[in-house]
Amino acid sequence: MSLHLNAFLMGVGHHEAAWRHPRTNERAVLDVEHFQNLGRIAERGTLDSVFFADGLAAGPRIERNTLAVFEPITLLTAIATATEHVGLIATASTSYNEPFTLARAFASLDHISGGRAGWNIVTSAGADEAANFGLEGIPEHQRRYERADEFLQVALKLWDSWQPGSIVLDAAEGRFADPAKVHPIDHVGERFRVKGPLNTPRSPQGRPLLVQAGSSETGKEFAAQYAEAVFTAQRALEEGKEFYTDLKCRLPKFGRSRHDLKVLPGIVPFIGSTEAEARELEESFTALISPDYALRQLSTMVGVDLTEHALDAPLPPLPPENEIQGNKSRYQLVKDLAEREQLTVRQLIARLGGGRGHRTFAGTPEQIADELQLWYEQGAADGFNIMPPYLPGGLEDFVDHVVPILRKRGLFRTEYTGRTLREHYGLPEVDAAAAWPAAQ
Amino acid sequence: MSLHLNAFLMGVGHHEAAWRHPRTNERAVLDVEHFQNLGRIAERGTLDSVFFADGLAAGPRIERNTLAVFEPITLLTAIATATEHVGLIATASTSYNEPFTLARAFASLDHISGGRAGWNIVTSAGADEAANFGLEGIPEHQRRYERADEFLQVALKLWDSWQPGSIVLDAAEGRFADPAKVHPIDHVGERFRVKGPLNTPRSPQGRPLLVQAGSSETGKEFAAQYAEAVFTAQRALEEGKEFYTDLKCRLPKFGRSRHDLKVLPGIVPFIGSTEAEARELEESFTALISPDYALRQLSTMVGVDLTEHALDAPLPPLPPENEIQGNKSRYQLVKDLAEREQLTVRQLIARLGGGRGHRTFAGTPEQIADELQLWYEQGAADGFNIMPPYLPGGLEDFVDHVVPILRKRGLFRTEYTGRTLREHYGLPEVDAAAAWPAAQ
Repeated sequence: MSLHLNAFLMGVGHHEAAWRHPRTNERAVLDVEHFQNLGRIAERGTLDSVFFADGLAAGPRIERNTLAVFEPITLLTAIATATEHVGLIATASTSYNEPFTLARAFASLDHISGGRAGWNIVTSAGADEAANFGLEGIPEHQRRYERADEFLQVALKLWDSWQPGSIVLDAAEGRFADPAKVHPIDHVGERFRVKGPLNTPRSPQGRPLLVQAGSSETGKEFAAQYAEAVFTAQRALEEGKEFYTDLKCRLPKFGRSRHDLKVLPGIVPFIGSTEAEARELEESFTALISPDYALRQLSTMVGVDLTEHALDAPLPPLPPENEIQGNKSRYQLVKDLAEREQLTVRQLIARLGGGRGHRTFAGTPEQIADELQLWYEQGAADGFNIMPPYLPGGLEDFVDHVVPILRKRGLFRTEYTGRTLREHYGLPEVDAAAAWPAAQ
Repeated sequence: MSLHLNAFLMGVGHHEAAWRHPRTNERAVLDVEHFQNLGRIAERGTLDSVFFADGLAAGPRIERNTLAVFEPITLLTAIATATEHVGLIATASTSYNEPFTLARAFASLDHISGGRAGWNIVTSAGADEAANFGLEGIPEHQRRYERADEFLQVALKLWDSWQPGSIVLDAAEGRFADPAKVHPIDHVGERFRVKGPLNTPRSPQGRPLLVQAGSSETGKEFAAQYAEAVFTAQRALEEGKEFYTDLKCRLPKFGRSRHDLKVLPGIVPFIGSTEAEARELEESFTALISPDYALRQLSTMVGVDLTEHALDAPLPPLPPENEIQGNKSRYQLVKDLAEREQLTVRQLIARLGGGRGHRTFAGTPEQIADELQLWYEQGAADGFNIMPPYLPGGLEDFVDHVVPILRKRGLFRTEYTGRTLREHYGLPEVDAAAAWPAAQ
């Protein structure tokens, strides 16, 4: 058994003030080689995968370093050509794509990377995203998940539309594939009608690794049904164990075992050679936070306009969770954090600055390894979503100083033993027999 | 003045029997390095660009080498990382994409490649494609172009939504972009409502080079309004001149000059050190054509089921052009060819085998250079769409034997002088002043 590590990459780092910090070069966000280099660093640390989030609107991000200059699937393709082993996970939306097009894009990334593609499935909660695709207002939470569910059904059928062994490449007979092993899917549902088959042959993994991050009730049910890895944002060990157990217990009803889904809480590590140095590093970032921007971001998270709110007062009363149509998990996390620790808005902003609500931890490599080991052994995590506060330095420090400790403790691989992303995560091959029983 | 050369790449070659020929390795169609190598060969020949066509259904291609294993935008991204200069053109459909998503994908490719992206705009005529996106039957020709027109308007606005100079990367003030230079587009039309701005900053070229290939009346009008390069399939010099003049004469009414659009007829060159050797090479390919498959492909082109038709008889009467909802240009070309030369079905299949209707020419490098020069100087072409019948050999022979002759005659560049695809084609920079006059 070994834990799993994903590097969640964003611009020059997750910290809100990353690109104003002397440890980064703000121009790197425009440079594809910066991102290829991050892929190589992750691979040097034998990490399972790298991951890029995405949103389908520029929004207030045009003023900040969190705007993705590159679209994730193309960016990961560029990283694929610069690496050999590390997995490549991209966020893509079920609300504003067509299943045929997206299934094909991921199949193509899987072919190009030799079986390293992963898809972080999102339903796109933003009103600004909706407005770029002809909709007014945010599509209702439940309906987004209904569409996601049918979208997944179609995508899975498309990926299976080419049976294993369907490519024959018989030059003498002049046959690329065996038509008897390439099937229309004839999907007819409430939202999609798709004939199939996919216009790309079965890819090395059969399909991308399926990743999910919603932790609303609907989100957890969706994850339990489809996801193979879950990115989450639990901040305290007890919460982490609760979430982990909750999710794992939902698996049997979908005929899945607890090993079929890996839970990866996020952590924003500030790494120093002493604890004091690590804390000082974190404070040097906190000091650079711009309150104006942070207030606007917090307003979006909690559904209340805080831009005129006093920084040293506590949060005003928040709307109930059932009135939130956006990201419910993030809303709940922020609300709980503020209430539990009785934080002022200024304190809350500092806490959220590191990773927009994800857990921040400042310490020595040993201390960070201890924390990861604790969560792993206590049943709160199968691995971690590492969110470097600044890049590339924060990833380099993790790979060069924390990973060796985890390896020495026998908690993490010393070399890649698998070829595909699915193998890195210790998942079985896609069960093609389920789709084509007669063919096995 | 110099002519322009695009390499139209497909699997292991355009000839229907390419992958059954000993000069190819049929497994290369699954190998991204094969395609990266083709990009490098094109670059060695200082070609303007490489191009991949695409279709959104597997169709009968599952049995043949013409199925695209890789989706073109991801494949060209992989080629971008293996090359420095050559332009990268991908087909994408206006009928089955959303303008926001596609505009962003091309902006991303343009960023990753440093300004080398091009978009071959297609409206997707296939019934099998429609059935993968919830439609029954082929969408009517005119309506496809109406959608394409509005799609282009939206995409152009999105690419211009970030003014030149909008990225400030002001670390001290904490600003990525100047919000006053990043604009919503607020497009409200018959088919699309898109708020914008695009979620990716202005790319090196401003937008991809716009390419088009339809030569129906509607297609030519569309090309005259938007396209900067046109791929066409004229087979005889007189036809070529007529098409060229027709298209160029349509430009002024859209406020464009004859230099703003480059006409590139396709040619499938069989290259030998003697004419006899070239002809022999062509015949060795023709001999490998599978009549069954070719008949089915021909049936699709002309809208009549020919699969039971006698091979040595002429074509049966064909439906009138206005009843064809698919690819009207290809239909007309095939009909004219069969009628003009009174071909049997077998002869027609052999003629079409090289490049599905494009002009095939077998000769020495000198003879091929002569032909290109003739068309160029006679006003039938600004350059050529080179369609190697087999790959990589057919492209290598062109680059290593024909290109040097064109260079010696002063007809083609000896090195890249520009940085972007737009510069290779001798086109002016995108006129940002047209979109943001106040800013200039």
